[in-house]
Amino acid sequence: MEDKRTHELPELYAPNGGEGPYSYSQNSNYQRGVVEAAKEKINEAIANHFDIQTFCGTKNPVCIVDLGCSTGANTFITVQNIVEAIKLKYKSKGVNAQIPDFLVFFNDNVSNDFNTLFKSLPPNRQYFAAGVPGSFHGCLFPKASLHLIHSSCALNWLSKIPIEVMDESSPAWNKGRIHYTNAKKEVLEAYETQFAKDMESLFSRAQELVVGGLLVLFVPAVPDVMSNSDTFTGTELDILGSCLMDMAKVGLVEEAKVDSFNVPAYYTPPKKLKALIERNGNFSIKRMEVLNNQKKHLILQSSSLRSLYLKAVLEGMIEKHFGNEILDELFNRFTHKIEGSSFFLNPETEKLIILFVLLERNN
Amino acid sequence: MEDKRTHELPELYAPNGGEGPYSYSQNSNYQRGVVEAAKEKINEAIANHFDIQTFCGTKNPVCIVDLGCSTGANTFITVQNIVEAIKLKYKSKGVNAQIPDFLVFFNDNVSNDFNTLFKSLPPNRQYFAAGVPGSFHGCLFPKASLHLIHSSCALNWLSKIPIEVMDESSPAWNKGRIHYTNAKKEVLEAYETQFAKDMESLFSRAQELVVGGLLVLFVPAVPDVMSNSDTFTGTELDILGSCLMDMAKVGLVEEAKVDSFNVPAYYTPPKKLKALIERNGNFSIKRMEVLNNQKKHLILQSSSLRSLYLKAVLEGMIEKHFGNEILDELFNRFTHKIEGSSFFLNPETEKLIILFVLLERNN
Repeated sequence: MEDKRTHELPELYAPNGGEGPYSYSQNSNYQRGVVEAAKEKINEAIANHFDIQTFCGTKNPVCIVDLGCSTGANTFITVQNIVEAIKLKYKSKGVNAQIPDFLVFFNDNVSNDFNTLFKSLPPNRQYFAAGVPGSFHGCLFPKASLHLIHSSCALNWLSKIPIEVMDESSPAWNKGRIHYTNAKKEVLEAYETQFAKDMESLFSRAQELVVGGLLVLFVPAVPDVMSNSDTFTGTELDILGSCLMDMAKVGLVEEAKVDSFNVPAYYTPPKKLKALIERNGNFSIKRMEVLNNQKKHLILQSSSLRSLYLKAVLEGMIEKHFGNEILDELFNRFTHKIEGSSFFLNPETEKLIILFVLLERNN
Repeated sequence: MEDKRTHELPELYAPNGGEGPYSYSQNSNYQRGVVEAAKEKINEAIANHFDIQTFCGTKNPVCIVDLGCSTGANTFITVQNIVEAIKLKYKSKGVNAQIPDFLVFFNDNVSNDFNTLFKSLPPNRQYFAAGVPGSFHGCLFPKASLHLIHSSCALNWLSKIPIEVMDESSPAWNKGRIHYTNAKKEVLEAYETQFAKDMESLFSRAQELVVGGLLVLFVPAVPDVMSNSDTFTGTELDILGSCLMDMAKVGLVEEAKVDSFNVPAYYTPPKKLKALIERNGNFSIKRMEVLNNQKKHLILQSSSLRSLYLKAVLEGMIEKHFGNEILDELFNRFTHKIEGSSFFLNPETEKLIILFVLLERNN
């Protein structure tokens, strides 16, 4: 299953081209709001915690990585912000002349479209660029070779579906559903356990950072006190699962196929993530707060647009599991079901948050 | 024109799959001979000149780049050889425990198929891998960030066609030909001048190497004393040009189009390359010798195979300039012309050499 997931992940962020009603440029106001709010946090993080005295000699380049960069424009905007913030710090300290070279590694799964990424690199960039293929749940870089690791909206994707939820003999068997939203508590626990394992492997990136190096995370998450059905994505996955079950009842898909299909997306509450960081011990928490996306009210609201968006995210995953002939029927049913729902009409209903987490590598 | 060339370059090394009569595996004996002979040279170079004392601290990774890596298997074999040779050196010096991490950068033009390269990375490789897109005639890496630069069979491709050979008013105008082989001396001089500029930009890679770092080159070249018509490629380009002119005479292509088409491939004599290295001054020449390819007798001899090989190399370039409708006619004519020639029957006729050049960065 790992392959299926990794194969599909990049779809999530691959923007539709052009300027039409379904184009990224017309539908990315929410995402652009995240990038803008993140810029401020990155600037503060670097101003207050990026230690140019200790770990930037005049000769060594500053090495930065964006984990889960995908192919799109957002990674270039973010990386540019990071480089500018570090340069600004040199200037503000009056050590202008010592500004080092920058080497930026763009990381994503092997199945990511690096050709497109490379062709879109900004021609006037102020850094050297390299692509690094591979899951960030494995080892990617030499020891102590990085100064800053960034990752935005990637950690919510688990490295794999928890085995138990697909195991008939397990109490966590997720029969008739495709996600933990509204499922029995054992299913949620299995997802939580997998997320904890994934965070442990992410935090082993610490050895790839120099001492004092920064891990800057933007994590799609949920408030500590809430029901999982209070996020658009959770609710949508629940409704999509019910559409699949409807189709199983009329013989359009096998019910066993629905039982074995699960979407490996997990949204952590801040408290749980904090506990995982502290248990791991490689990092000190410098900041942990909810990002204030001032464009939250621009979230997609029409049922057809939300359906298209979810289809873009899950299409490949569904196709691989069920075959492509069910796609139109499934998403027609889905659009129809959410049309009747008032849930998506009010952006305030959406409880999903983006958590900004700034970690510093311990000695 | 630069784009056209860079777009097509990777084709040269992209091996045909499978095991059929036109597959790379059936036709790569000559190339494999180069890789095998190169291995010995690389081993010696590292044993004698890679200074593990000076520039490999225990904490910093050894950084290696392959310039012009393409997508294929050869780059992985070569990189593996380099890593093993350096490890062997650590072992032979009894500093086993200090063997550092290795970070290998695979470089080629932006148009190279990095997706394929990344998917083919050996799963059990002993190094961290990154892809770096861009021409090695421009700046690619931070200052003093590399320990060894390797490039095989790439320097014979010029960064662009010399402008003069396409300029009607220039004495170097290459009317009716597509290469300098058998052309007037001004054409050859224009190619030589472009090659000299390209080598100057290659040698500026010195600043990206640490002091004492190595530049290991395998350069398709010609003996100092010979006629350019004594190489298979030169002769083939000359014949291909004559086929194009034949087609122009019967109205199948425009003559002006032939006049403006030139193949940016140059094969240097060793003496000229040596002079360019010395004039540049960034490097000391540690070794410079002809590679002994013991599989030279396995060079492709049949006219149809040579035609296919040349087509694979030039197809995209020709298509971009003339359109794809002329391809079949052109290569049919070409195959027919070389069928009558005894030139390609004897591998000893081929005077092309592979020059091994080992350079060390000066202080």
